[in-house]
Amino acid sequence: MNVTVADRSALMEQETRLNESPSAVPGTQRPGGRTAKVRRAVLDATEEALAAGGFHTLNMDQVAAAAGVGKTTVYRRWGSPVGLVTDLLRDMAEQSAPAADTGGLAGDLRANATLVRETLTDPRMGAVFRAVIAAAACDEECARALGGFYRARLAEWAPVAVRAEARGELPAGTDPLELLRAVSAPLYHRFALTHEELTAADAERAVTAALAAAAAGAYTA
Amino acid sequence: MNVTVADRSALMEQETRLNESPSAVPGTQRPGGRTAKVRRAVLDATEEALAAGGFHTLNMDQVAAAAGVGKTTVYRRWGSPVGLVTDLLRDMAEQSAPAADTGGLAGDLRANATLVRETLTDPRMGAVFRAVIAAAACDEECARALGGFYRARLAEWAPVAVRAEARGELPAGTDPLELLRAVSAPLYHRFALTHEELTAADAERAVTAALAAAAAGAYTA
Repeated sequence: MNVTVADRSALMEQETRLNESPSAVPGTQRPGGRTAKVRRAVLDATEEALAAGGFHTLNMDQVAAAAGVGKTTVYRRWGSPVGLVTDLLRDMAEQSAPAADTGGLAGDLRANATLVRETLTDPRMGAVFRAVIAAAACDEECARALGGFYRARLAEWAPVAVRAEARGELPAGTDPLELLRAVSAPLYHRFALTHEELTAADAERAVTAALAAAAAGAYTA
Repeated sequence: MNVTVADRSALMEQETRLNESPSAVPGTQRPGGRTAKVRRAVLDATEEALAAGGFHTLNMDQVAAAAGVGKTTVYRRWGSPVGLVTDLLRDMAEQSAPAADTGGLAGDLRANATLVRETLTDPRMGAVFRAVIAAAACDEECARALGGFYRARLAEWAPVAVRAEARGELPAGTDPLELLRAVSAPLYHRFALTHEELTAADAERAVTAALAAAAAGAYTA
């Protein structure tokens, strides 16, 4: 996967199949235009490749072929496999996954824990998450993108804590992000570190523990 | 880092610098003998390389050179960069890191959280841990070795919970491993996922939360 400057120059001579503008000035592309379509196709192909083989087998040429996009475009715009993962993470961060609103804190946190568990135990998404964690451990910019994705997800669920505090279910000043982190952290610990099974009982334990710690004021600033 | 069968055959013609037996029968090597010395040198060089450049730059030839061991030996015995990391993790799992015994549960858990934080924020060890987490995300056998390492560390600290339960500081039937996991999981969540700073306040919050959750019975089986 090492590509020299000479290789890149050669690749840049090739035509891209979707033939989009090679020197787009930011803001000159219509949303939903060719640039967006190329990005969508490449990121979908990247996710598919990560699901199938993980980060260490991610191959720029194969992604280009699967996306139906010229190699030139993929090398020029994303630069490297880690560049593809970084952009995939930025795209994932922008996608909305609204929080649950069950009317009670325990129900909302349970929905969050279930979502995390179902994502990580899903064969496709579990493989994608393993791959993006690996990529982030290899590259600082990718690490920032992974951090941005998780902070976006935690922030999206913050209203759960804000509503609970307004209902008197949480001590005043509870940090929503720390509460939500407490729910998912033990599940990710199993997934990424001890590589243990992730059961419904594990999800439930995470919720019970987070509720008890929050009630005791462990997450007040 | 791709080595073909032909490359390996050529490498195997070379002499190894430490000149150890190429066809050792298990059990015929003295503990502390040449085989153990070669393994020690190679694993030390592997750790050094991970600290310096991460998993994605780990190079078998460079490890062999740094260890003063022939390439033949390194390729034959460890096979691949991920094989080196897997054996390093097995070695790390065997090293003893005895738990604190401060006389109280809060003090012991605080010592654990401090140890985790100091390890992950240490420039050298932080880089090594990022690298082994990345390697484990790329290979199933390495993932098992990483899991074995973390389970060994959790088990080594289990007496902290057993003693606390005997002193009446924990509900009967508290799962020691889940209690210890609760302390380190939010710290690893910052380290490996959100890539946020890891402060003394974060370590203290993890301890406070784990104590409150344990007192409420969240970790009883």
